Amino acid sequence: MTQNMEIICVGNELLIGKTLNTNAQWLSKRATAVGIAVKRVTVVADEVEEIASAVREALQRKPQFVITTGGLGPTFDDKTLEGIAKALNRKLEVNAKALQMIKKKYETYAREKRVEKVELTQSRIKMATIPERTEPVSNRVGTAPGIRANVDETILIALPGVPSEMEAIFEETIAPLLKQASGGNVFHEKSIYADNIMESTLAPLIDKVMHDNPGVYVKSHPKGEENKPHIEIHFSIKAKDTEKPEEKLQKAIIQLSSLIKKSNGKVFSDKRVGA
Amino acid sequence: MTQNMEIICVGNELLIGKTLNTNAQWLSKRATAVGIAVKRVTVVADEVEEIASAVREALQRKPQFVITTGGLGPTFDDKTLEGIAKALNRKLEVNAKALQMIKKKYETYAREKRVEKVELTQSRIKMATIPERTEPVSNRVGTAPGIRANVDETILIALPGVPSEMEAIFEETIAPLLKQASGGNVFHEKSIYADNIMESTLAPLIDKVMHDNPGVYVKSHPKGEENKPHIEIHFSIKAKDTEKPEEKLQKAIIQLSSLIKKSNGKVFSDKRVGA
Repeated sequence: MTQNMEIICVGNELLIGKTLNTNAQWLSKRATAVGIAVKRVTVVADEVEEIASAVREALQRKPQFVITTGGLGPTFDDKTLEGIAKALNRKLEVNAKALQMIKKKYETYAREKRVEKVELTQSRIKMATIPERTEPVSNRVGTAPGIRANVDETILIALPGVPSEMEAIFEETIAPLLKQASGGNVFHEKSIYADNIMESTLAPLIDKVMHDNPGVYVKSHPKGEENKPHIEIHFSIKAKDTEKPEEKLQKAIIQLSSLIKKSNGKVFSDKRVGA
Repeated sequence: MTQNMEIICVGNELLIGKTLNTNAQWLSKRATAVGIAVKRVTVVADEVEEIASAVREALQRKPQFVITTGGLGPTFDDKTLEGIAKALNRKLEVNAKALQMIKKKYETYAREKRVEKVELTQSRIKMATIPERTEPVSNRVGTAPGIRANVDETILIALPGVPSEMEAIFEETIAPLLKQASGGNVFHEKSIYADNIMESTLAPLIDKVMHDNPGVYVKSHPKGEENKPHIEIHFSIKAKDTEKPEEKLQKAIIQLSSLIKKSNGKVFSDKRVGA
């Protein structure tokens, strides 16, 4: 079993370009940091069949984790749980524990707002209607619980789309699972910046440094304009602390910096200097 | 043939959370605006097999357009053309037209920098090595050309990942194709903002308005905190100008605003007022 994860983001707002997918970036960054590689991000619309296909396809690739975001709320277009139920071929049922979580939220709301009891309408019960044999996951910030299910060797987790809710559930409940799964591997990264060298001149130098420094990944990101090259060069390694990852990165950085200077390029450790 | 599109973004930087996927948002917004629905966004790593799978799977769903971004440059990890070649089962070959485009770029560079001739190294020729029976697409801003191929009923387009290059090629070469395909359908949207109403109270009201206003899509986006609800409500419609889309949106907005007020909610036309 490889230590990896897929992310599925559900929401028309992403596919019409109304919303920038910051959830995918946030989850990718956090998973990477604790040593879990994100293999794929899929964004689909608020449609049961689209969600079900994306979940089914992700599970077929057998990642260790699949995390979905979005579509857990009370409105008609919150269809992630229905899509997951379809993908897993499980029935949707009102989950007593989830209903209890939601009831408590509305009781607190009623108390704070000094209003009468908030009715458990159909829209509210919908948020507690989850696929059978899945566990609700408490949502401290918002109302709709997440869910968690074991599907063969994969842990499938559904999180809300509201960033503050998603992030809170992730940190409380999901991050510890990922850390445990990664077995102490941690992601280390560092960037340097090069001017006065074209990316195509840099390419063979990167090949050499990657060959000489096993485990270190080097990727160039051109930032400047066509005839005024300014390139960020990103070094990364995934390793246990005992494997001295920082030293390995530093060795690769020193070697590439020297090769760039030999090609008349300029090297900066800070993007502000070169920009 | 439905008027739709899939986007495939290639790049480890997206999957480690280093880079926010603004390209997907930009392309989604532009395609939506000219009437083409984006059905799916897939993000994969800089690996030939990952790219090939994503392209193959997208083509199997038979969208009208597949646009890839990223992975066209000169470095070892620019593998999109190899992935596409594998997905299409076509050979990679040095394309004379693409090579001419690249040669010209480096001639201009050499002239402006007053350096000797820039050699056509292996890394540079790589950018002109494209799958057989595909057309290079001129890149005015950068060096690596895009490519375009017809695959059954789908038009497959590969664009660079550098935003300024991607956007320039899109506007010059791709937008006209999409506009023609959409047959005059245009996307119209408008948001209102509601305070003092929970999303779960709003849910059945949205159901009613969508039922009474065919073609208009209404989606709620909670923005506030748990016990201080502030919700953006987004109305959209895809229609020809002759179908009076603005009037249809306005009718739905008036109906929902009135229903919200009846539930003691407050309605604002501007987010700054309600925020």
